[in-house]
Amino acid sequence: MNFGVIGYGYWGPNIVRNLASLEDSRVLAIADASPTARKRAQKAYPEIHVTSDASEVTSSPEIDVVAVITPVWTHYELAKAALENGKHVFVEKPFTSNTAQGEDLINLARRKNLKIMVDHTFLFTGAVKKISQLMDEGTLGKLYYYDSTRVNLGLFQHDINVLWDLAPHDLSIMDHLINGSPEAVVATGQNHLNGHEDVAYMTLYFPEKVIAHVNVNWLSPVKVRTTLIGGEKRMLVWNDLEADEKVKVYDKGVDIRNREGVYELLVNYRSGDMWSPQLEQVEALKQELTYFVDCISSGEEPFNNGCAGLRVVKMLEAATESLRQKGTLVYL
Amino acid sequence: MNFGVIGYGYWGPNIVRNLASLEDSRVLAIADASPTARKRAQKAYPEIHVTSDASEVTSSPEIDVVAVITPVWTHYELAKAALENGKHVFVEKPFTSNTAQGEDLINLARRKNLKIMVDHTFLFTGAVKKISQLMDEGTLGKLYYYDSTRVNLGLFQHDINVLWDLAPHDLSIMDHLINGSPEAVVATGQNHLNGHEDVAYMTLYFPEKVIAHVNVNWLSPVKVRTTLIGGEKRMLVWNDLEADEKVKVYDKGVDIRNREGVYELLVNYRSGDMWSPQLEQVEALKQELTYFVDCISSGEEPFNNGCAGLRVVKMLEAATESLRQKGTLVYL
Amino acid sequence: MNFGVIGYGYWGPNIVRNLASLEDSRVLAIADASPTARKRAQKAYPEIHVTSDASEVTSSPEIDVVAVITPVWTHYELAKAALENGKHVFVEKPFTSNTAQGEDLINLARRKNLKIMVDHTFLFTGAVKKISQLMDEGTLGKLYYYDSTRVNLGLFQHDINVLWDLAPHDLSIMDHLINGSPEAVVATGQNHLNGHEDVAYMTLYFPEKVIAHVNVNWLSPVKVRTTLIGGEKRMLVWNDLEADEKVKVYDKGVDIRNREGVYELLVNYRSGDMWSPQLEQVEALKQELTYFVDCISSGEEPFNNGCAGLRVVKMLEAATESLRQKGTLVYL
Amino acid sequence: MNFGVIGYGYWGPNIVRNLASLEDSRVLAIADASPTARKRAQKAYPEIHVTSDASEVTSSPEIDVVAVITPVWTHYELAKAALENGKHVFVEKPFTSNTAQGEDLINLARRKNLKIMVDHTFLFTGAVKKISQLMDEGTLGKLYYYDSTRVNLGLFQHDINVLWDLAPHDLSIMDHLINGSPEAVVATGQNHLNGHEDVAYMTLYFPEKVIAHVNVNWLSPVKVRTTLIGGEKRMLVWNDLEADEKVKVYDKGVDIRNREGVYELLVNYRSGDMWSPQLEQVEALKQELTYFVDCISSGEEPFNNGCAGLRVVKMLEAATESLRQKGTLVYL
Repeated sequence: MNFGVIGYGYWGPNIVRNLASLEDSRVLAIADASPTARKRAQKAYPEIHVTSDASEVTSSPEIDVVAVITPVWTHYELAKAALENGKHVFVEKPFTSNTAQGEDLINLARRKNLKIMVDHTFLFTGAVKKISQLMDEGTLGKLYYYDSTRVNLGLFQHDINVLWDLAPHDLSIMDHLINGSPEAVVATGQNHLNGHEDVAYMTLYFPEKVIAHVNVNWLSPVKVRTTLIGGEKRMLVWNDLEADEKVKVYDKGVDIRNREGVYELLVNYRSGDMWSPQLEQVEALKQELTYFVDCISSGEEPFNNGCAGLRVVKMLEAATESLRQKGTLVYL
Repeated sequence: MNFGVIGYGYWGPNIVRNLASLEDSRVLAIADASPTARKRAQKAYPEIHVTSDASEVTSSPEIDVVAVITPVWTHYELAKAALENGKHVFVEKPFTSNTAQGEDLINLARRKNLKIMVDHTFLFTGAVKKISQLMDEGTLGKLYYYDSTRVNLGLFQHDINVLWDLAPHDLSIMDHLINGSPEAVVATGQNHLNGHEDVAYMTLYFPEKVIAHVNVNWLSPVKVRTTLIGGEKRMLVWNDLEADEKVKVYDKGVDIRNREGVYELLVNYRSGDMWSPQLEQVEALKQELTYFVDCISSGEEPFNNGCAGLRVVKMLEAATESLRQKGTLVYL
Repeated sequence: MNFGVIGYGYWGPNIVRNLASLEDSRVLAIADASPTARKRAQKAYPEIHVTSDASEVTSSPEIDVVAVITPVWTHYELAKAALENGKHVFVEKPFTSNTAQGEDLINLARRKNLKIMVDHTFLFTGAVKKISQLMDEGTLGKLYYYDSTRVNLGLFQHDINVLWDLAPHDLSIMDHLINGSPEAVVATGQNHLNGHEDVAYMTLYFPEKVIAHVNVNWLSPVKVRTTLIGGEKRMLVWNDLEADEKVKVYDKGVDIRNREGVYELLVNYRSGDMWSPQLEQVEALKQELTYFVDCISSGEEPFNNGCAGLRVVKMLEAATESLRQKGTLVYL
Repeated sequence: MNFGVIGYGYWGPNIVRNLASLEDSRVLAIADASPTARKRAQKAYPEIHVTSDASEVTSSPEIDVVAVITPVWTHYELAKAALENGKHVFVEKPFTSNTAQGEDLINLARRKNLKIMVDHTFLFTGAVKKISQLMDEGTLGKLYYYDSTRVNLGLFQHDINVLWDLAPHDLSIMDHLINGSPEAVVATGQNHLNGHEDVAYMTLYFPEKVIAHVNVNWLSPVKVRTTLIGGEKRMLVWNDLEADEKVKVYDKGVDIRNREGVYELLVNYRSGDMWSPQLEQVEALKQELTYFVDCISSGEEPFNNGCAGLRVVKMLEAATESLRQKGTLVYL
């Protein structure tokens, strides 16, 4: 399968490196507007065609799949051009800048019988796979909450705020792990430097009293990547910065026994062993790209398709609206 | 100075122990409705009068100061009785159940020329003192945000939600550290067990783009007590669970240089040394009680007086209103 | 059962507090040479007889058991006096200053039909109990090594070196956990300040290729209390400074498959889940003292008796000899 | 400058990658006995000559420098052949299998006016550079001890024991940081699996009461890379596994005031701030190879030359002798 890659900035080189290492794929062309990026690409891959003109990639008759690894505001035009020319597309997250664009691309792909995959890489990590398995097997019991903190110093974006930059990771993971869709969103935040929010908080109300929260921040002196997931039976902590033991499952919980009395505590705490499962040690991006090649070959619809990407965009849109109104509840 | 203590549950014994160890104070009476609590008190302090009748404490002619260490819904009546009988009062946080009660007590104390201190213990810790000093000296530069996480498994309260239980710590610290008062509050959360929210999030909008956030949770498998404070010049992390090195100051920051270009990052990151100052190693509660004894003797108004307590109650009231409306902005 | 306690310095108050709280014991007298210590004791326990004369304790007809919580060079005389007067003795670790003293006390106790318990408190912690259970059940498989690091800043002793101060913890735990006795000892170290070694290392050779190592240091800027135990089937890490998750069991190991070839690795690594068992949450010292009271009542010989204390003293003696000769192998 | 690289196993690819990226060097040939390694090399570098015959590399007239990245028992023959053919050599650590080989190579290089560099990579890390600077500036004061723990699960070697595999890192760092050479060595350890020690401990006595200790272990369930360095004025901890804050300097220490009294402590503890300096963020190996190219060009003798490599080999030889005699003191 022949790939063309548009965008060779921070993430693009990882896409090219993985595609180059797969048995069933090769990269024929790389496009980037920046001369520096093109120079880096050409030096690393002398045999690949490198160009400043993205339309060479979207229109090349030899290319089967186009990977769009550019800023979000360019996704729609580039993916549309690729689809119109009969190419499958792999799009960096977030999928599009708004709902209308996303729906348009999904419809176009359907009409052309082409596949879209949105790069929700985290879904292919050993950690998320294991958490997904634990939740599917009922290890946590009924879900209570999902609470993620994703903060660090920079990398500042100039065209989007911190929610659109960092929260797509969490929203795509939630979308994958939690049954049902969020009903409403509340977002708060503040901009301090370039007019875009650099600190933001997002609460999502799901059905059946499930609540989710995302804390994202470009101005944190320390890097944090921690998610707490609380269920009726067990709770887990996923610290993605731990070298080993990223996921810890706690046999802890609370039962309410009765509701009377005043000075008496009504609550029974359960505190048992902790257990850290061994995780699959594969490169997530490699697995994701292999999966896309397989989906295209077999005709299977990827679970991280345009619709999954669109669901995340809708949450971001609602959050943006809430943020502008300083926390008003926005229904989805 | 002679103290009477009402409430000998979880926190009361610490109050009694510290008052008993101070040179200028002694405890004459302890009241608690629970026979078990009274038995514990009498065994530990055979020489102190222990009673089930709080009015014995509030009316005793030998008692100068009454410490009210009971659930919040009882604070108003007990403190009022004590003040009416001419006693200074030390009240557990949160000060009162609502604004009206707090204002009433403040006015009563003023008329009677008595002192109220609200037990904002954290203000007397080495960590908060050091952070306060650093902020006053301008070490952090202009403040950007204050972000606190205070989660653990239980202790569930049956009469209040997790915001009223855990957030008063953070709100009193913010009130102490941040210049100016919050203008508006947004709170979200969810109850899963006994009708009171056990997971809650609170955003406070301060003047000049300062934003604060509090994450409180009774259903966390791990205990977290971490606060990030970001300023223009430096940022700090306060992890209260670290045995040593609770406060770390990072010489890190971001400067925005210009606002043009598209692919070029507009941001300059600064990353220097980290520094963990030695903290004072005293018991905060002992310092606070000593300070109250001194204030009563000297006539000085404590900074954690009824007005400070009332400011925290107003934030909690506004948060409760926002929580009921699922995140509506509530002005203070 | 009536206790007399000699020594009210750092550890003595914990002994008295626990004995005072037990149902079947009470403290009748406390002796200490220091006026400050006596003042503290009398203030905390107005009803207990406090004296500067240890012989009042060892000879009092009302006292059944004497606890000797003094520097090691005083243990022999005090314990001997107590035994001669028909009292059971509880002796702080290390048991005695040398083998001869320890044997003398053991023989004396046997003749008088009295019990000796040496205060190897760690054997009564939840962590050591759990590790002991795991090793007895074969969870770790055949033992390979035991490696402990116990370092911090001070507390400097002026009469003994860091081995005699800190290593007794590890040696008593090893003696309890490892089947068989060490055959030989190598110790190295250095003194920098007061003529006693403040940094020391000790290797113990056990039968069947089991090796143990202890790293003790009074000059470390950070406190470390970490023990690694490696077995054929599993390995564990015990970090006593962790609030929760003190013991972690790793399903990790190595198998040697064949011994040929040069460039090929001959080794197969196994890496599975990690598991942190819930530990008993009791005060170790309270359990130990309860156990001693029970042993005296029932006539049962405590496992941490004089012989256990003597085994630790012999290891310390051998280590001291090796240390003086800069690491010569000393057989036990 | 034209390089030939012998050995393309675990570390060789890093050498080739760095040499390929430097401006003033290129790799002309790679030799490895393993067909798999050769296949990997050829795929990654189609333009480089890949061979099974190391003598092609050592004798090629176009090659100026030979990098020997093979097991230690092969170093002598390969380096000798390269030197005899007039090539400079870069040798993996440990330099040689014994002193005689090392001296032979040093003499040969001198006669031929060629340079030897031994790959003591750690000396070029930001951490060691900073520690070296701090010690040179007197920040720590007079050195008391150097204590390193370097343990993990595998990688088992079949031709050498764990001391020869892991300790060269620490020994080369010590050799660089500590003034003066060790006078004597004590080593203990045990083999459990393939006849080579997999757990070992090494004490080095330096002049002026400086003591060093190395704890190396192939059978640890957790990876540890921690070094404590204690001085009269300050102490530091270097944890190489920390992403940030690898080096922490503690303003802590001990003063001995007088030596009298029995119950009184004679020691004064000082406990001040902690400070974690920002470290240089460069790839150590790249810096080392650049430095070697510069040394060859300028004629400067590298500080990590054959003599530095030989000093480490002598310590390892002495340790091996001590290990065989179970801890006998071996003078250097």
